[in-house]
Order: sequence, then structure tokens, then C-alpha cells
Amino acid sequence: MVVKCKRCGVNNAEIYLAHSNLRLCPDCFMLLTERKVKHAVETYKMISKDDNIGIAVSGGKDSSSLAYILSKSFEKIPITLIHIDLGIPNYSQHCLEKVKELSKIIDRELVVYSLEKELGFKIPDFKATIYGKKMCSACGAIKRYLFNKITYDLGLTKIATGHNLDDTVEALFNSYVEGNVGALVRLRPFLPKTHPKMMPKIKPLIGLTDMECLIYAEYRNLPIRSLGCQFSESSRTIRRKRLLNLLAENMPNFKHTFISSHFRRLLPCLETALKDHETKIYECPNCGMPTSLEGVPCHFCKIVSIVLEKKDKHASEAG
Amino acid sequence: MVVKCKRCGVNNAEIYLAHSNLRLCPDCFMLLTERKVKHAVETYKMISKDDNIGIAVSGGKDSSSLAYILSKSFEKIPITLIHIDLGIPNYSQHCLEKVKELSKIIDRELVVYSLEKELGFKIPDFKATIYGKKMCSACGAIKRYLFNKITYDLGLTKIATGHNLDDTVEALFNSYVEGNVGALVRLRPFLPKTHPKMMPKIKPLIGLTDMECLIYAEYRNLPIRSLGCQFSESSRTIRRKRLLNLLAENMPNFKHTFISSHFRRLLPCLETALKDHETKIYECPNCGMPTSLEGVPCHFCKIVSIVLEKKDKHASEAG
Repeated sequence: MVVKCKRCGVNNAEIYLAHSNLRLCPDCFMLLTERKVKHAVETYKMISKDDNIGIAVSGGKDSSSLAYILSKSFEKIPITLIHIDLGIPNYSQHCLEKVKELSKIIDRELVVYSLEKELGFKIPDFKATIYGKKMCSACGAIKRYLFNKITYDLGLTKIATGHNLDDTVEALFNSYVEGNVGALVRLRPFLPKTHPKMMPKIKPLIGLTDMECLIYAEYRNLPIRSLGCQFSESSRTIRRKRLLNLLAENMPNFKHTFISSHFRRLLPCLETALKDHETKIYECPNCGMPTSLEGVPCHFCKIVSIVLEKKDKHASEAG
Repeated sequence: MVVKCKRCGVNNAEIYLAHSNLRLCPDCFMLLTERKVKHAVETYKMISKDDNIGIAVSGGKDSSSLAYILSKSFEKIPITLIHIDLGIPNYSQHCLEKVKELSKIIDRELVVYSLEKELGFKIPDFKATIYGKKMCSACGAIKRYLFNKITYDLGLTKIATGHNLDDTVEALFNSYVEGNVGALVRLRPFLPKTHPKMMPKIKPLIGLTDMECLIYAEYRNLPIRSLGCQFSESSRTIRRKRLLNLLAENMPNFKHTFISSHFRRLLPCLETALKDHETKIYECPNCGMPTSLEGVPCHFCKIVSIVLEKKDKHASEAG
């Protein structure tokens, strides 16, 4: 039996969104997805008319959909795509091709930062270090630092990332189970400036599931990577997302209710409680960027020095 | 292959506790289970030497294990078992037999309160009322009220209930997802007196899983009901417990970590935030017991009047 789209009533429905019990045709799905992003941007006042936005793009479904939707919905806002070339064999070349294509399609400038050219190492170099068993954590820390620094160096006003609903639910769930109140308070759709060199961060996809982002990217025929990173395949994050999807299958509203309860009810309480304990921000004596540590190199400088030291040692042993 | 008990190294292990990765023989399992209960009692200072404890017993695995363990571990403390006869056909007679047996085995007095004799209705009478689709909620409200009132009327000092780890995790999870901050703050192992007629409540089984309570009751050969309540079989609570067990299968420490993070990290924040918003307690103009509502009958009086009214109407129509 052919089911018509619940919104237009004309085209055949192709997608079923269990959380809102909607069957939609591709056109209406794309329209509603874009509206959800605009709605999040407006609700959390993420973008103002004099902004100059950097978008962190990886070649994945989320950041590509983000770049496409923001570029289309906020035509007059200057947007720069920022991509970090991680130096992972095959994978990184493949991702770079996709973001170059994306940049052409949406006609926005792309800035590529190569770890190897700029810093002299590649992500696989972490394999031989103490970060060998937590590559994703080292890689994440490096990307977070660099996206902030590049945005600052380019003179942009904000950095937008492709964190979606599933990413946020997974991170929230994790922080609640572990009782990490600090992380719960930092995890927000719009993180304002807390230091002159700490750029405001926005997450316009916070209302879209993994599946919505993927379907959107496919319907729009956006260039997205088909290779997975060889280091992240069995990561805890992915396993936990699978478990949370099991919950959502049985409680279709679970993710949306959880997120909305957190932001509306719990976060204000946690903020009130932490009001007097605001973490101080210092400047790294090495790179000058903001850090929570006083008088010692920041986390980024520390892990970069570890990976470079190991590389030098290998090189001198080989030589 | 026969595996020896990890604790005594002598007897064959029969039980595997995934959350602590322990294989135990029945004797060591029972010993450790009793120690966990004593540990919870001591950690939260649930019992003091001049206490006179009422234990709410239903005939189920949790409250029977609770009564047995408290009675054995706190020999000198006066203990009274309190049972409410709900008037559910077959089920209630069956439960009553079990708690009578239990009372004999542990040699502690049993007080039975019959809804029909004392109040003139039975739980099945709710079927014809607006509570027909939420029988469990009405039944729960009635039991909570009556256990408190009976404890007060008998001149006891505290009421102990069989709420275990799974009950608590389910309730916490639910309240987090729904953002019910008030419920999160009230859900504690030891709820002290907040009004002269609001008896302190203790939950000594807060560290034991459903499975541990069941196995303990079976090894001790305690009289526990084999019938389930005909009204509760598809309740949301049970479905959600099943989902949370799926999570625990993949993260064996999930329940214990979640509970401990809540009590150690999150609860203090929520309490700080709610400090200035303490709910006022009034007295019900009808029954005189404490209630959060001002000037109107309490929730218990309201639902009792609804069920009695419906019964009278039926009786007069039949007559």
C-alpha cells in the first residue's frame, strides 16, 4: 500500500519519523529538516546579522548537512568551511575530496589545516604513544583546540559544529551516569565567549537525529565520506549510541524528551548550584591560548609535545 | 568445569554477579548480601538503637528478604511487619498467607490492614472509576499513605520499604528523562521527618538488584508469592526495567555507577538549587494527615471518595 506524505498529501511518503509519528515525502522531509535547524538557531539565538561564521567540516553526514543548511538558510551571513587534514592514510585524502566538493557546491570558501604541514605529525603517530589506546580522545582534543584557534586566527566570530541530537543524548547520558556535573553544564547548544580567545560555539543540528542528518545528506546528494576512520570503529561512543537507540525504539520520544528536560529543568538547577564555583581560565605559557590549568602547558601543547618527542626518538633511532 | 567460590575457595560457585565480577557459593552470597544491607543502613544512618521499626511487607521477594535480613541483623531492635490486604481476588489471599508464614519464621509481630474492612472498598473497585487505566498509580498512592499512617498510629519511629537498586534506577532514570527535579530530590535512601505525622522512610535494599533479592529469598527458602498481580502485568515500570537491564548487560556497572553518581554528585547540586523552594506541608482538612495541597482534601482522601462514590452508585443502581 502506498502511503501519501502527511504534510503535502500529494507525493508518496518515503520516510517514517517514529519520534513524531510522521510519514513524509523527500521534499517535505528536507523542508522540515531545514526548519528544525532554523528553529534551533532562533531559539538559542545562535546567529546574529553581523556574524562571520566558521563551520567545522569533516566530510561526514552531519557537518556537510550543517554547512549546506546554514549556507542556504543564512545566505547573507559570511561562512567559511574549516577542515583539518588529520593525515590518516586513505581516510583523510577521501575526506578532503568530499569537503572540497562541498565547498564548490555551496560556493563558500574552504580553509584546510594540515596537521603534518603545520605541526609535523599525523594522527596515526599517536599509536606509538601513551595515547595508543585512546586515539579518539587525543584526536578529539586536537580538533577542539584547533577549530577554536583557527576561528580566532581567521578573525571569525563563531564556530559551528555538526553535533546532533544523538551525539548530545549520548554525551548527556554518559555525564549523568558518571555524575560529571561540569561536563553537563558545558554541554550547551550555544556556548558563549568566556575568554577573548575562546570563541563562541554553536550546535545548530542539536534537534536532528543521526538518521535525519544521513537521510538529508543523501536526498540533497551532498558529497559525504563513504570510508570510516580505521581507529574509531569500536569506540565506546558508538557502542553507547547503539544502546540508546534500543531505548528509543521502545520509547520513541526518549531522546527528544530527555534533551528538552535537561535544558529546561535540570540545567538551570545545575547552573544555580555551580554559580559560585566558576572555573578560572588561564593562558597557556606555551601557546597563549585559554586553558583551565595554571602555570603549566595546556592539554593540547602537552599531547603535541608527547607525539613529537616520540617521533623524534623514532627518527633518531632509525637514523 | 566446576568453579569454586571466589570468597571461600571451598564450595562450588553457583551465582555470578556480573556487576562485581564475582562467582559465589550460596553461603557466601547470603553473607555478602546481608553485609550490603548492613552497609547501606550504616552509610545512611538509617537505624538508631532506640528505633521501633515498621516494615512494609507485600509477600514479594524484596520485602520478605528485607524483613528477614533486618530481623537477623538488628536482633535487639523492635520490628513490626505491616501488610495491607488489597482485596484482589486470589492474589491478596495468597500474599496474606505468605506474610503470615514470614512473620512466624522471623518471630516478629504482623499487623494486617484490610482495605475492605477498614475503608469499605477493594483495589478492583478502581476498575470502574477514572483510575481504571492507572490502577497501579492509585494502588501505590493508597499504600504510601496507609503505610505512613499505620506507622504513625502504631507509635513506631520509622517505616522500612523493600525498594531495591532496580526500583531506584528505574525511578531515577524516569525522573531524569522527564526532568522531574522534585521527584529526584525526594528519592532518597533515608527520607527524614518533615512533619510530625510524616514518618521517616528508609530503604535498606537500595544496593541490591532485583536478581540478588530473588536469589536471596530463594536460598533462605523464604515464603514469597508465586502469583503476580493481575493488574500490573504490562505496567510501564516493568517495561522500563527490562530496557535498563539491556543497558546493564552491556555496561555491567551501569546501575551502581548511576546511583552512586546521583547521590554523590548530582543530588547535592539539585538540593542546593531547590533550597529556597522548599514545598510547604499542610494538613488535610478531612483526615488531618500531611499533604502538599492547601485547603482541599489530600490525594488519598480524593481517590478514596471517588472509589466509594462509584461503589455507592453501583449499589443503589443494583438495589
